[in-house]
Amino acid sequence: MRTSIAIIGAGPAGMFLAHLLAAEGIAAVVLERRDRAYVEGRVRAGVLEQVTTDLMHRLGLGARLDREGLVHGGTQISLDGTLFRIDMAALTGGSAVTVYGQQEVMHDLFEAAPERGVEIVWNADDVTLEGLDGDHPVVRWRQDGVAQELQCDYVVGCDGYHGVSRSSIPAHVLRTFERVYPFGWLGILADVPPADHELIYANHERGFALASMRSPTRSRYYIQCGLDEQVEDWSDDRFWDELCLRLGPDAGSRVTRGPSFEKSIAPLRSFVSEPMRWGRLFLAGDAAHIVPPTGAKGLNLAASDVIMLSEALVDHYRGGSDAGLDGYSARALARVWKAERFSWWFTSITHRFPDMDGFARRIQAAEIDYIRGSQAAQRTLAENYVGLPLMAA
Amino acid sequence: MRTSIAIIGAGPAGMFLAHLLAAEGIAAVVLERRDRAYVEGRVRAGVLEQVTTDLMHRLGLGARLDREGLVHGGTQISLDGTLFRIDMAALTGGSAVTVYGQQEVMHDLFEAAPERGVEIVWNADDVTLEGLDGDHPVVRWRQDGVAQELQCDYVVGCDGYHGVSRSSIPAHVLRTFERVYPFGWLGILADVPPADHELIYANHERGFALASMRSPTRSRYYIQCGLDEQVEDWSDDRFWDELCLRLGPDAGSRVTRGPSFEKSIAPLRSFVSEPMRWGRLFLAGDAAHIVPPTGAKGLNLAASDVIMLSEALVDHYRGGSDAGLDGYSARALARVWKAERFSWWFTSITHRFPDMDGFARRIQAAEIDYIRGSQAAQRTLAENYVGLPLMAA
Repeated sequence: MRTSIAIIGAGPAGMFLAHLLAAEGIAAVVLERRDRAYVEGRVRAGVLEQVTTDLMHRLGLGARLDREGLVHGGTQISLDGTLFRIDMAALTGGSAVTVYGQQEVMHDLFEAAPERGVEIVWNADDVTLEGLDGDHPVVRWRQDGVAQELQCDYVVGCDGYHGVSRSSIPAHVLRTFERVYPFGWLGILADVPPADHELIYANHERGFALASMRSPTRSRYYIQCGLDEQVEDWSDDRFWDELCLRLGPDAGSRVTRGPSFEKSIAPLRSFVSEPMRWGRLFLAGDAAHIVPPTGAKGLNLAASDVIMLSEALVDHYRGGSDAGLDGYSARALARVWKAERFSWWFTSITHRFPDMDGFARRIQAAEIDYIRGSQAAQRTLAENYVGLPLMAA
Repeated sequence: MRTSIAIIGAGPAGMFLAHLLAAEGIAAVVLERRDRAYVEGRVRAGVLEQVTTDLMHRLGLGARLDREGLVHGGTQISLDGTLFRIDMAALTGGSAVTVYGQQEVMHDLFEAAPERGVEIVWNADDVTLEGLDGDHPVVRWRQDGVAQELQCDYVVGCDGYHGVSRSSIPAHVLRTFERVYPFGWLGILADVPPADHELIYANHERGFALASMRSPTRSRYYIQCGLDEQVEDWSDDRFWDELCLRLGPDAGSRVTRGPSFEKSIAPLRSFVSEPMRWGRLFLAGDAAHIVPPTGAKGLNLAASDVIMLSEALVDHYRGGSDAGLDGYSARALARVWKAERFSWWFTSITHRFPDMDGFARRIQAAEIDYIRGSQAAQRTLAENYVGLPLMAA
């Protein structure tokens, strides 16, 4: 079997890239370790940047997004129960974010795959990458116990943090950067109307809380928790009580309670691996970088990575120029690091850190107070939140 | 002896307040531990916010400032030798900072004192404050060994971090907040033309450097240094070499070398004491808060503190309302904490911290890169640098 581009992983990065390449007539095959139901069922991010919704439309996948996505022109910040709103649309000249679950994005990408000629190999076990530093890379895997191989020009690793792609790069080539946060997010999904039609990021003395949603009838709530806490210790009642306390009387009183159908604790981490290219292997999305969920940059960075990579591949196959491929890592990393900075910063001003002293606490409150009063500060938050522009290659 | 307001300390806070009160016909006496030559000779800050230059003009003390002050409509940031400019005037609707040494400010304030009826007692030894929690405070001191006393309505502590005023407040009343930085500034003054007509804040892998000036013929340069370093180990040649390295080839090549006539190492510290009022004692300036010198907020905060306090005292003596006095601490602290946040942040993005790991370093570079590319981010820097507006009482 032979193709131009072997894409490892059928998550957002891999599937967006496969659609982008299909639209340009560049041959590609996606290899996925799991099956469609598994990938589509994973509960993940739910807030799309303007860059990502623009990509959905560009791929002709915007119809259901337009119908069902909730466009948010603003977001809300709460400090110890006092709310203020960031009018993102007004501050950015009309940009917005759209609430549309990653599961919905994946569904749309998978549904359209056959008609667009996007080829996906499901249940590809034991993927290995060979010859990445030569001219003829080969991807091998097993399917139902039978060895398979795919020859290609380039491999794109879209297989996440734990995937085989990044670990195929020799250790001495990679530089990794990491920040582990001393808390996690306890999140629930419940089929109740959300407390507000926009998100509320709450900094409270008991810890961070986030009021989010998936739809007008499905709420997504999170509270900051200790890394040693167990989901089993958090009954729905305890969760709702704590959430309402942290959102404060005004927003908390608007929370509709109901049984949760998903409840889990996730750690928060910042991670970047450099470079994002080695020989004939390119990395995109979580394979190269992880952000804490504050600000919802993960899925959106996967989209911007593969937009840039697809432009470089089009230049290679159509324009005969490798400048884009040679510049991909630096170009992508410049945007990745700005998003990492924003995610780290937004986490740092909204969460209570166990080791914060009084000075750090006052500085945090002063920063939120400054944002409340400064249009310029609100604009920096807004322009990062809706997504910084993709820089020229 | 009796007056309305006893002002402890003839530094910028005390002298600005004395002039503000004199202009309103409110009786005041300034007590200063040292003599005029000492106070006027202290080498201190040199960059005035718009708020402070406006105050000089309002007091009728703007003539020499207008002639000799260097108005800066912009400032420059350097990351590893690559410079970019923040056009403060354009970003803030015409605000600027003015280079005019604290020594010049003090000279103007002292020169005008006699004709404005500003009364200063020099060489006031062993000042003590009594009755601050009652209705009849008394200030006692010794002059040439002879005990003196001043009865007053209110005492304003403008006597700096080490002064008697803050320490006259019972410990259980005060909350203090502090951050000590793991480095100092080695600074020199030299009678050579400055490298640039504007300031350059340089983040370099060898540490921070600042190219500043006092006049077109007098340069003020600083480099970040370890807290264990000795001035004696820094010959002028060594200083100039290190400075030019950190400013990078472009800016470094514009440095004119010459013999230094002042060379010293200062630690960096953030400190705030709350509240800024106890009974009949009010604190202003360094007596209540210290900022690291990055961004030059110290003198300017002293000015904004006493502007707010003078408004409150005018309301009390003229309008018969104590609302301003009662609200002074909260109002002043709101602005103090924003300036503390800015000074801390500007220090944190321009200096190399000994404990920075690769992630922190990349985040710092990403933030500077973001500022370089974002008008909104540049505006936040500019509006803080020229001084945030004084909030309504």
